[in-house]
Amino acid sequence: MRPFASLLLIASLTTTAAFAADATPEVDPATLAKLRDAALQSDYAYERLSDLTDTIGPRLSGSKQAAAAVTQVADAMRALGATVTLQPVKVPHWVRGEERAELVGYPGQPAGLTQRIDLTALGGSGATPAKGLTREVVVVRSFAELEAKAAAVKDRIVLLSVPFDQNLAENGHSGVAYGQGGEPRFRGPAAAAKLGAAAMLVRSVGGARFRLPHTGATRFDDKGPKIPAAAVTVEDALLIERLSAKGPVTMTLTVTPQTLPDADSYNVIADWPGRDKPDEVVVLSGHLDSWDLGTGAIDDGAGVASAMGALSVLKSQGLRARRTIRLVAYMNEENGSRGARAYFDANKGSIEKQIAAIESDAGAGLPLGLHANVTLGSIKRLEALTDALRPFGASVLKRSDRPVGADIAPLSLAGVPGFEPLLDTRHYFDYHHTAADTLDKVEPDHLRRQVAVMTTLAWWLAEAPEPLERLPVEKAGE
Amino acid sequence: MRPFASLLLIASLTTTAAFAADATPEVDPATLAKLRDAALQSDYAYERLSDLTDTIGPRLSGSKQAAAAVTQVADAMRALGATVTLQPVKVPHWVRGEERAELVGYPGQPAGLTQRIDLTALGGSGATPAKGLTREVVVVRSFAELEAKAAAVKDRIVLLSVPFDQNLAENGHSGVAYGQGGEPRFRGPAAAAKLGAAAMLVRSVGGARFRLPHTGATRFDDKGPKIPAAAVTVEDALLIERLSAKGPVTMTLTVTPQTLPDADSYNVIADWPGRDKPDEVVVLSGHLDSWDLGTGAIDDGAGVASAMGALSVLKSQGLRARRTIRLVAYMNEENGSRGARAYFDANKGSIEKQIAAIESDAGAGLPLGLHANVTLGSIKRLEALTDALRPFGASVLKRSDRPVGADIAPLSLAGVPGFEPLLDTRHYFDYHHTAADTLDKVEPDHLRRQVAVMTTLAWWLAEAPEPLERLPVEKAGE
Repeated sequence: MRPFASLLLIASLTTTAAFAADATPEVDPATLAKLRDAALQSDYAYERLSDLTDTIGPRLSGSKQAAAAVTQVADAMRALGATVTLQPVKVPHWVRGEERAELVGYPGQPAGLTQRIDLTALGGSGATPAKGLTREVVVVRSFAELEAKAAAVKDRIVLLSVPFDQNLAENGHSGVAYGQGGEPRFRGPAAAAKLGAAAMLVRSVGGARFRLPHTGATRFDDKGPKIPAAAVTVEDALLIERLSAKGPVTMTLTVTPQTLPDADSYNVIADWPGRDKPDEVVVLSGHLDSWDLGTGAIDDGAGVASAMGALSVLKSQGLRARRTIRLVAYMNEENGSRGARAYFDANKGSIEKQIAAIESDAGAGLPLGLHANVTLGSIKRLEALTDALRPFGASVLKRSDRPVGADIAPLSLAGVPGFEPLLDTRHYFDYHHTAADTLDKVEPDHLRRQVAVMTTLAWWLAEAPEPLERLPVEKAGE
Repeated sequence: MRPFASLLLIASLTTTAAFAADATPEVDPATLAKLRDAALQSDYAYERLSDLTDTIGPRLSGSKQAAAAVTQVADAMRALGATVTLQPVKVPHWVRGEERAELVGYPGQPAGLTQRIDLTALGGSGATPAKGLTREVVVVRSFAELEAKAAAVKDRIVLLSVPFDQNLAENGHSGVAYGQGGEPRFRGPAAAAKLGAAAMLVRSVGGARFRLPHTGATRFDDKGPKIPAAAVTVEDALLIERLSAKGPVTMTLTVTPQTLPDADSYNVIADWPGRDKPDEVVVLSGHLDSWDLGTGAIDDGAGVASAMGALSVLKSQGLRARRTIRLVAYMNEENGSRGARAYFDANKGSIEKQIAAIESDAGAGLPLGLHANVTLGSIKRLEALTDALRPFGASVLKRSDRPVGADIAPLSLAGVPGFEPLLDTRHYFDYHHTAADTLDKVEPDHLRRQVAVMTTLAWWLAEAPEPLERLPVEKAGE
C-alpha cells in the first residue's frame, strides 16, 4: 500500500502537457478544474458509502439488504434532484447456509483428534447432506493434473490448489493475477463435477495470509452436474497439501447453501439530464450488489458511491452537460450480471445514443488515472482531460483493447467507448470477496480523488461537441 | 516483515568482537561454533513443529489436543535418549462454545435488517443465555472513561475500544504495544463487571486488518462477578464506534463458553544430564499449550520445537555439558500459568540448583540475538557467546531489568538469570492468538537460527565453569 512514488513517476511521464496554445480546448478547462476541486473537497461520496456499508452491510443479489440498497440509493439520488428509474432485473437468489469442515483422517493423526478447516462456499455451490459428506481428498495443482487424475477424483473431494501470484499483483497486473488465481474457482467445480467428483475445494485467491476465505461465483453448466464447491483459506490449503504428501487425508465437509427461485430486483438509474442532447447518454456506474461476507465497501460500494458523488458535485456546481450523465447502480454483477444484461437489452435498439460508459469496480485505492477501452485515435483528445487530473497525480492514460468494467462490457462490445478509474489495486484482492471488505479499508481522501476522476471524465465525455469515436464491433455483445 | 537492514546494523554495532587475545575463553569457542553450525543445518525442530501443529493443532489447556501434545513431545524426547518426566499440573479447563453477535438496533437501520459482528470469547469469559443477551452498547475508549460512565454501563454491553499501536510494534517495542493494547482485555471485563455491566467487549489486539478476532485470557476476581467477555475484530469495533457516534446501538450477543472442573495435565521435562554437575540445571523452555483458534505454531509451538531442536543437536554432536540442560515444555502459559507455578514450587526448595533459565515465547521471527534478564556484571562474560552468534546476525545482547518469558519469571524473581531469544516481533501480534497462527507463518530458516541461539546459549550457561551471577531477589516469586 505504501510506496507510490514509482507509480506517480509513471503518471508524470506518461502524459505530456496538453494546454497547447494552438487550439481551443473541446471542453472548457476551467469547468473541469472547478468540478475537480469541488470533488476533492466533498465528503458526500464517503457519507453515502458509509450509509451503504454501515447501515445495510452485505448486499448479495436477492437479499433484503440488496433491496434496501436499491431504495437507499434511489432516495439519495431523488434528493439530489436526479430523474430516477428502477429498471427491473430478475436475479439469481443463492443463499449461504452452514459451512464447516474438518479433517477426520490423516497421517500421524492422534486417536480421537480432528483438524478444523476454514472455508466458505462459492456462490452457486451445491449442497452436501446436512450432516456432511465424508470423502478422501485428492490434491491437484492444475487443470491438467485434474484431467490426468480423472479416475482418482471420482466420488472424492478434490482440492485444486493454485497459488495467487502476489508479485504480479504488486507490479501492476493484479487483474492478470486474479484471472490466473481465480480460474480454479471460475471453472474448477464444473470440471470436477463432470469427472464425478463429490465436491470441489479451491485455494482462496489473494495475497493476504490471515486465514480468511475468499468467496466468489462459480459456474456450473446448466445441464451438467452441480456439486458442493468451496474456497478453503490459503493456510488450510497448505495444511491439506502437507498432510496429503504423507498419506491419505479424509475430510467431512458440510456446506448447505440453497438456490431459491430468481428474485425481483432492480438497477437504479439516476439521470442528470443533458441541456442540449438529453437523449445522448454517458453511463457512470458501479455495482450495487456485493458478496455476503464483508460489507462490500471496496467491491463495489466505492464504485457506486463515487458515481453518486459525481452527481452531487454537478448539483453543487449547478452544472448540466450537453448530454445526459446517467448514474447506473447495477444489480447482480457478482453472480449473474443480470443487471448489465437488462440495461444492455433495454438500450441495444438505440445503442448509438450510448455515447460512452464508465464503471468503477476496482476498489478505492489511490487513483492514478484512467483505464480506457477506446480507439487509438481517441487518445489525443483525452489528453486535455488528463491535464485536469495531473494536479493530484491521476493523469495516467492507459489504453485497453478489451472492455473495462464487467457491467459495461456488453456496451463496449457493441461499440461504446468504455472507461474505469485506474486505481492502485496492489492489495485489492487481499480484501475483495472476504469478510474484511469493510468501510475502514477506504481512505476518505482516495475516494474524494476517485470522485474527481469520475466527475471530470463524465463531464468531458458528456460535454465534448463530438462524441468519441465508436469501438469496432467484433461481436454483438450477446 | 521486510527491511531487516537496520536491525542487523544494530546487531553489528551493539556488540564488539570479543575474541580478545588476552584471556582463555570460559567456554570453548570451537564447540559453540560446532553446535551453531549443526543447528543451522538441522530440520529436526521444524519437523517437530509440523507434528505438533499439523497432526494435533490447537492445544488449549485441558483439551484432548493438549494431552496428545504431552504424549507426542515426551515420546520424541525419549526417542532422543533424554530422561523424561511428566510433572503433574492441574489446569483450568475453559471450553469455547458458540459465539456470534449482531447489531439489532442502530441509527439509520433499514426495517428488518441487522448487522453481523465478528468476535470471539476471551479465555475465562462467562456465558450469555443460550439465546443471547440483548442490550445497548456503551462505547468507551479508556479505563478512565469507563469509570466516568459507571452509571451508564450498568446492565449494558460495554465496548472498550483502544487501538493497537502498530507504530510502536514496528519500532522495536512490540511488547509495550501489546501491554498497552492488551490492558483492556487483561482487566477490562473484571472492571466492567464490578460496575454492573452485562457484558464486556474489547477491540482485538494486533496490527492486522483482516477481520480476525484476537483471543486471550481475561481475569476476573475470584470473589467478583463474572460476565461474558469477547474481543471484536478491529473492523467491527470501528463499525460500532461509528454507529454509536450517531445514536444508540443495540446488540444481541451470544457466547456460551463453559468453565469445567480443573483438568489433569503435565509439564514435559526432558533432561540432558550434565557430565560433572547433573544436579545443576539450565532450563530451556517454551510452552506446550496454545489458544484454540489457530494451531499455535508461533505461540508457542516454535518455542517448544526450538528447545527440542537444541537437545537434538546435542545428541547429534554427542555432547553433554558440565551441567544438566533441561527442556521444559510448560503447560498452561496462556490461561493460568499453572505449569510455571508447578515447576517453581517443585524447585523453590533448592533454587540455587537452578543455574539459568531460557524461554522462547515470542514467535518464530528472524533471531537477532539475546534478551537477557541478568546483572550488569554478567554482560561482559556473555559477549564471548554472542560472538558465536555473529555469523548469522544474531549477536545483539539486550539486557532487561525485568523477567523475560512468562513461565520462567517465577525463577528469575527468585534470582535465576533469565533469557529469551531476541526475535523480530514486528508482526508477531498480527497472528498471535488468532486463527492465522499456523505453520506457514514459520520460515524454516528462521527456526533453524532460533535453534542455533537456544543451543549455544544453553551450552554456554551449562558449560561455563562458574554460573552467572544470581539476580537480586526483590520478592519471593509468589
